[in-house]
Amino acid sequence: MSGTVAVAPPFLAACRREPVERTPVWMLRQAGRYLPEYRALRERHDFLTLMRTPELATEVTLQPLRRFPLDAAILFADILTPIEGWDLGLSFAPGPLLERPIRSAADVARLPRVAAEESVPYLFETVRALAAELPETTPLIGFGGAPFTLFCYLVEGKGSKSFARAKAFLWSEPEAAHRLLDRLADLTIDYLGAQARAGARALMLFDSWAGLLGPEDYARFARPAVAKILAALGDFGVPRIYFPHQGATLLGEVATLPLEVVAVDWRLPLSKVRAILGPGIAVQGNLDPAALFAPAAELERAIDRVLDEAGPGPGHVFNLGHGVEPTTDPDQVARMVERVHRESERSAQRGGSR
Amino acid sequence: MSGTVAVAPPFLAACRREPVERTPVWMLRQAGRYLPEYRALRERHDFLTLMRTPELATEVTLQPLRRFPLDAAILFADILTPIEGWDLGLSFAPGPLLERPIRSAADVARLPRVAAEESVPYLFETVRALAAELPETTPLIGFGGAPFTLFCYLVEGKGSKSFARAKAFLWSEPEAAHRLLDRLADLTIDYLGAQARAGARALMLFDSWAGLLGPEDYARFARPAVAKILAALGDFGVPRIYFPHQGATLLGEVATLPLEVVAVDWRLPLSKVRAILGPGIAVQGNLDPAALFAPAAELERAIDRVLDEAGPGPGHVFNLGHGVEPTTDPDQVARMVERVHRESERSAQRGGSR
Repeated sequence: MSGTVAVAPPFLAACRREPVERTPVWMLRQAGRYLPEYRALRERHDFLTLMRTPELATEVTLQPLRRFPLDAAILFADILTPIEGWDLGLSFAPGPLLERPIRSAADVARLPRVAAEESVPYLFETVRALAAELPETTPLIGFGGAPFTLFCYLVEGKGSKSFARAKAFLWSEPEAAHRLLDRLADLTIDYLGAQARAGARALMLFDSWAGLLGPEDYARFARPAVAKILAALGDFGVPRIYFPHQGATLLGEVATLPLEVVAVDWRLPLSKVRAILGPGIAVQGNLDPAALFAPAAELERAIDRVLDEAGPGPGHVFNLGHGVEPTTDPDQVARMVERVHRESERSAQRGGSR
Repeated sequence: MSGTVAVAPPFLAACRREPVERTPVWMLRQAGRYLPEYRALRERHDFLTLMRTPELATEVTLQPLRRFPLDAAILFADILTPIEGWDLGLSFAPGPLLERPIRSAADVARLPRVAAEESVPYLFETVRALAAELPETTPLIGFGGAPFTLFCYLVEGKGSKSFARAKAFLWSEPEAAHRLLDRLADLTIDYLGAQARAGARALMLFDSWAGLLGPEDYARFARPAVAKILAALGDFGVPRIYFPHQGATLLGEVATLPLEVVAVDWRLPLSKVRAILGPGIAVQGNLDPAALFAPAAELERAIDRVLDEAGPGPGHVFNLGHGVEPTTDPDQVARMVERVHRESERSAQRGGSR
């Protein structure tokens, strides 16, 4: 319904549940290893150098946008970037590894208070460079890890399937755990606020390990710190996106958070996600990245199903339900972006706004 | 309500939704590394030797029963045991590793047909030894991996967080994928049927990776092979337990499978699980294994919550929602078993049967 279409970039309009001519689309890990031009850069520079050198991080962020008409850019960084100032001996091998994980109340008490702009100044240089370079229609999304997810790495000291040690810390030392989660909330408020001031036009909080908790433990341990961050970020007037990965059973708790958009994986159809979240929240997702390995006709059917499940109303940003796999054929990504735009435009012209 | 209590062992009665004096309890991975006596055996024998030597596998299975008044025993084996006859170069390092993973329709066509009693005779010797040794009141649970879960390992060739390669095979080669899943169903029918004939008094199917699929893909790829197995096992007259790990969004599909018991992780309270499954299915679970790291009073509160959520009606087998962690204190397990028995008995005496 072009008469009512907003002048805002489609991505921002959809986040605010304003009608758009076609569904905006971007992709988790759109800047990454499935792109030959990214792999070429990685042959010359390691991951940390790419991330910490503003010219390189800017280049990596822009690479997918040169290939595909994506509706948003996302900063090239790691969810553990903001804890660089905490002196825990963070490295990537290639997964995150901490020399000095947090294992006691004393470890928590010892954490220094350092402003993000001092501990990771390169990151904000990258944000400013991207804000200057990107066209008005392609907003930059800033992001960070949600406190419980960061907590998992900080206590476990490395990646894990079950994060048993981190979860044991929650139960055995609940007071120290809450203090650490609250410190991570404060750190993230500063970190994401600084990204917004530097030019990020939306902010996304990745809760990659939220799905390790049942609803009651999520409400007790993880949700308070998320609510604190999202409430504080309301001051910046940019859409707030929260991604509780594998969080289908947590959506009742998520529905009452102060936010504009909930990103979801593919484990629940968007119609059911919307039924739980209610009409006041936009949704982002939720194609299974495995669908990008299907023959063209089947991939297109899978895309159309996601669009159908999202429904005719406004407030849908198309995305994958998880990062694109490194072995994905970039031509399949091109096919996906084109299909999302064409099908949703056709549907909007038939009368249902998007 | 002791007047109506069945003479069957409490575990089997609860599986059949008959009233019991107290809720039966056993524990995923109850025979394992959290027990010093298991670690002592492992110092002298590697994992494969323990599993493949009937005397040792019998001893390991019985170890937890000597410590705790558990209501069931579970065979000490691996979900990949039945594929030993497929000559794929399976080893454990310590996770499963296949020298010759399945990557094409030709690989699937090449799989030999071998009866489980020929390919893994040691396993049935163990089952027979356990059936002879265990008291009538402590049934032996036989088990296997569900086809989609085995498929994940067979195609990926090793463990993985996302099993991207296995999922890509589903989408890129759906016909070959279906053939492999069907072959795995036939293999499992033979394998679990032979366990029942050897003396297993309940059969459990572990679908550890079911949660990688959304409901539609689960219905398309994973569910048909599960349904085929469960239907065939109906002939043996023993309770059929299915565990779709991380499968909260799949329970609607699971509710119509031919089975007696659905085991669930801790991501959905049992009251909600029961509401989806309906009154004709018993439930097994669902304490978060991390709760075993809590101080005693808090652990007991968490146990009581699970009992409360299961409700006063019959058809609940208490268990963890995932395997017990190797760092768990055995005294906490003792506390759990005692609490489940005492609290549920008290509640049954107050008038609500269990």
